[in-house]
Amino acid sequence: MKLPRAVQDLIEKFEKLPGVGPKSAQRLVFYLLHNPDYELEDFAEKLTALKKNTVLCDLCHNVSEHNPCSICDDQNREMQTICVVEQPLDVIAIEKSNSFKGRYHVLHGSIAPLNNIGPDQLFLHDLSNRLEGVTELIVATNPTMEGEATALYIHEYLNNHSKVDSQSFSVTRIGHGLPIGADIEYADGVTLSRALEGRRKL
Amino acid sequence: MKLPRAVQDLIEKFEKLPGVGPKSAQRLVFYLLHNPDYELEDFAEKLTALKKNTVLCDLCHNVSEHNPCSICDDQNREMQTICVVEQPLDVIAIEKSNSFKGRYHVLHGSIAPLNNIGPDQLFLHDLSNRLEGVTELIVATNPTMEGEATALYIHEYLNNHSKVDSQSFSVTRIGHGLPIGADIEYADGVTLSRALEGRRKL
Repeated sequence: MKLPRAVQDLIEKFEKLPGVGPKSAQRLVFYLLHNPDYELEDFAEKLTALKKNTVLCDLCHNVSEHNPCSICDDQNREMQTICVVEQPLDVIAIEKSNSFKGRYHVLHGSIAPLNNIGPDQLFLHDLSNRLEGVTELIVATNPTMEGEATALYIHEYLNNHSKVDSQSFSVTRIGHGLPIGADIEYADGVTLSRALEGRRKL
Repeated sequence: MKLPRAVQDLIEKFEKLPGVGPKSAQRLVFYLLHNPDYELEDFAEKLTALKKNTVLCDLCHNVSEHNPCSICDDQNREMQTICVVEQPLDVIAIEKSNSFKGRYHVLHGSIAPLNNIGPDQLFLHDLSNRLEGVTELIVATNPTMEGEATALYIHEYLNNHSKVDSQSFSVTRIGHGLPIGADIEYADGVTLSRALEGRRKL
């Protein structure tokens, strides 16, 4: 027995989303079948509006409604620190922590040679134009192979290509160690060695 | 920091889907942001087409492109057996098993008083109009509280309301027991007692 074309088409669309397998795609579509027509049309409108009503900020490349974005445009934020992150969701996470008052720079990825993503595929090279008056650049890419490689690359690149004197600012890496609430007994070796390296005086 | 309205709107839409939490909704929407415009528009079109291009079959109430559906319309299928299931996905699962050649009747749910779903909310009462020439009605609702209650209700209801002599057909329940590949050691008590009840001569 074949599924109706319209059902099959939508299942295929959902299957393409990350973390949605064939079974969950089926379940989602049959759930939507029980929704009223106006709900589906509303969903469809929101989908087409997604990219129409958002832009990337020219300065930090974060997803925003305006250009420049509300953070880059905010004169109350510290101008001398920039935090480099991989994704817009990282900005949201750091903003929620309420512990950073500078501005951001969103790379939209990390260097991943296996996936054919090199520095040129990232919003990386215009970072060197933003260093006027900046004293610290915090590299908050993920503590993964790709994130670490990206952090090293940024450090090298800015040493050689920055428009301002590379002595005028420092490049720092976000701290690695045990997450709050974790258990030393179950921590992996790499995390523990990083936590020991990053020890601080009480 | 607030998310752009268009992003927030779509996150809310995804959150309403079963099994999609706030975090996965966020991840899905930011994934879609990296898709080209035509992909999003295609997705939106498929969403609106879902209900426009499908109908419920008047006979079995399965989701279909045509009315009556391809199964009800197929003269090669056995006319004397009807399999009652809860959802269209159950039809697909049974069809895949290649072990049933009759027709179906899709209830679109099961009796669940806690969720305010009684027999009147299901496609149940017109089942009694379909019994002409039928010798067996297989009740394949889920082996859950709701599914079992629905099975019992169907049995009672047809005994009292069927348009044909209730002696002319039998109502059977799909077999319960150990699924193939299961381990007796880990089977729950109810399943084991049903498996013993349903034992057959080798």
